[in-house]
Amino acid sequence: MNAVTPADVSTEVRDMALSARVAARKLVASASDARNQALYAAAAFLDERREVLREANAMDMRRASEADLDSALLDRLELTDDRIDAMLEGLRQVAGLPDPVGEIRDMRARPSGIRVGKMRVPLGVIGIIYESRPNVTADAASLCIKSGNAAILRGGSEALHSNAVIAAAMSDGLLSAGLDAASVQLVQTRDRAAVGALLGLEGLIDVVIPRGGKSLVERISKEARVPVIKHLDGVCHVYVDATADAEMALAIAINAKTHRYGTCNTMETLLVHQNEAASLLPRLAEAYASASVELRGCERTLALLPDATAASEDDWVTEYLGPILSIRVVDDIDAAMEHIARYGSGHTEAIVTSDYLRSQRFLREVDSASVMVNASTRFADGFEYGLGAEIGISTDKLHARGPVGLEGLTSEKFVVLGEGQIRR
Amino acid sequence: MNAVTPADVSTEVRDMALSARVAARKLVASASDARNQALYAAAAFLDERREVLREANAMDMRRASEADLDSALLDRLELTDDRIDAMLEGLRQVAGLPDPVGEIRDMRARPSGIRVGKMRVPLGVIGIIYESRPNVTADAASLCIKSGNAAILRGGSEALHSNAVIAAAMSDGLLSAGLDAASVQLVQTRDRAAVGALLGLEGLIDVVIPRGGKSLVERISKEARVPVIKHLDGVCHVYVDATADAEMALAIAINAKTHRYGTCNTMETLLVHQNEAASLLPRLAEAYASASVELRGCERTLALLPDATAASEDDWVTEYLGPILSIRVVDDIDAAMEHIARYGSGHTEAIVTSDYLRSQRFLREVDSASVMVNASTRFADGFEYGLGAEIGISTDKLHARGPVGLEGLTSEKFVVLGEGQIRR
Repeated sequence: MNAVTPADVSTEVRDMALSARVAARKLVASASDARNQALYAAAAFLDERREVLREANAMDMRRASEADLDSALLDRLELTDDRIDAMLEGLRQVAGLPDPVGEIRDMRARPSGIRVGKMRVPLGVIGIIYESRPNVTADAASLCIKSGNAAILRGGSEALHSNAVIAAAMSDGLLSAGLDAASVQLVQTRDRAAVGALLGLEGLIDVVIPRGGKSLVERISKEARVPVIKHLDGVCHVYVDATADAEMALAIAINAKTHRYGTCNTMETLLVHQNEAASLLPRLAEAYASASVELRGCERTLALLPDATAASEDDWVTEYLGPILSIRVVDDIDAAMEHIARYGSGHTEAIVTSDYLRSQRFLREVDSASVMVNASTRFADGFEYGLGAEIGISTDKLHARGPVGLEGLTSEKFVVLGEGQIRR
Repeated sequence: MNAVTPADVSTEVRDMALSARVAARKLVASASDARNQALYAAAAFLDERREVLREANAMDMRRASEADLDSALLDRLELTDDRIDAMLEGLRQVAGLPDPVGEIRDMRARPSGIRVGKMRVPLGVIGIIYESRPNVTADAASLCIKSGNAAILRGGSEALHSNAVIAAAMSDGLLSAGLDAASVQLVQTRDRAAVGALLGLEGLIDVVIPRGGKSLVERISKEARVPVIKHLDGVCHVYVDATADAEMALAIAINAKTHRYGTCNTMETLLVHQNEAASLLPRLAEAYASASVELRGCERTLALLPDATAASEDDWVTEYLGPILSIRVVDDIDAAMEHIARYGSGHTEAIVTSDYLRSQRFLREVDSASVMVNASTRFADGFEYGLGAEIGISTDKLHARGPVGLEGLTSEKFVVLGEGQIRR
């Protein structure tokens, strides 16, 4: 085989985008039923080809171990039977969700006689750039198809064989439902130039959604000439107010930190009202100690928890993604919201309170994608929110904030119905 | 006076953005009434200071004539009494619009017991970069304030004195309503480096909206590190279908082209079904001739209209913004939609038809910000759509498409109401 030059890669990716645009126009004209049928059929094809998929995955796993990739990556890469079942179930669940496309809202007659409203439409062609999990291929493709978008997928090169089998099943599902197989395409070259090529296709690709670690997302945002829906940090806060129910505060603060450490909606900083600190923090520290969570606190925290270490300015902006928690004692809700505005990442924040007015202030004034009263930050999730599925979580402020489901893969255009009206 | 160095400018603009962020947090917490009051008060201040404004404008006009700026620019720059009245009326009208902020929709209970919905919130700090019309200062600032956003305004340097008087009245109005004067700030340096500085303030400015010609918008989009809501071309189409009412088709095709030439929602290309061309085009040509509209056609058009000149490939993608029209005879609605997909700019397209199914196909399949049936493209406008006012028209596909009113200056965050729920 000859080495692939960047020029070839960029032509290849561009050709894929051109086919995707044609496919997207057909998807817009397709019936809901056909798109659902494509997803059910893809699940059936994958089920039939389970052995082929297992073999492809074994090949990826072998190659990855030989390349000495770390064990966390190997774990994400592996497709067990359970994971394949979950992937098939995911395809069928997405097929069963309500179709977001075509909904018309706010149709109103205007003085000129025209009627004006907004119609929900697909975005067009969506690029998804992700890392080692092969099940993302099915998840992302199914959400795109369901919402009438064509998808160009660029998975981790370590998962290439697995991804190819899944993408082929998606395309075969599309064909069997009378849709264009190019509605789902996988970039199969291992050449990293493919990502750069994808990010430069202004006018051909409508949005790119990176799914992966912060460095991947930052690199893509920096380089992209096309719009990006992105997720950066999740430095999430729980603020325990003066009037909080102590048992509730304990349960939420423990759950938000210890339910899972590696997730973006995990609490990284706990803010405690000065009146509650003396009674709450020692009890909390005990619970955290039994879960081996390291505590880093402000001076007032350290006075109450001598085993904690001093938090540095860096701690307030760090997404630990591990068993570490920073704690600050604050004067009041204003100081708590000031801390969140200054150090937070706009992902998810919760207040624990029994005061009505302060609950409303927190909801209104905290500028984060998800704002909660008396609930664990761990609920910030597409499934928990009832979106059916999520393609990612956005920390952007335009278009879609928080968990992005089918609606986030669409936008609204204006529709005007007239009977011959002209502008006077 | 010393020359201003770019470093000074960038510090100045950064400081403005920092003050704007503080102001934005106060605006989020402000009552609707206070924001409306600020706009009414600003109108009253401007009315009182009418003479000061006229003098400032005369100074701008004098400087512009001395600099030999063209007459179209001088016309846009001038603030006549009528224009000042219209500006004051605009401020009062925006104050009277419904408040978009705080609306909560789709609040639903989830199996876990939490209730989840979406709350409409301001974007935060909005940068507006515009050209010579000083009334944009009041228009843009009022829409930002009304929707709870802080505004940083960068107008054309030729309008600096006029803009400064208007911006001061806005800030005084804010103060008199108990709000932060820094909610509206005008970049007053003539140094062009200010724009670059503004565009680089990631995390401090939430979105920049350029209002001006295509070259301004392209430059800003290219340079911006912050999100941009932009308007590029308006290559709008009217497609006259086989079943169109001939009189309606004539009226719409004439209105869409000749009502105003310089506007982005003016038709630039007319597509005519082959069965209608022979009867329609000669009558249309007569009407266009009497309005001195130059016609450029495809081969089939030229066969019917010998006075038209041949359209080149370039014509199909050109926004003439003047009395020129390109015409193409097409086989059917598919060919019309194919032409629009290939050459259109996604701004506004209309079909003239009496066929129900084809009207629905056009509405659904044409991927433009505004899609119309039996109405003139000239209706694509915030006022005609009932948005109350518009800050611009977006040809982007994410966030806001078409005329951008108050809703486009907001986004939605998730709100979660619990009673102590934790994730299992």
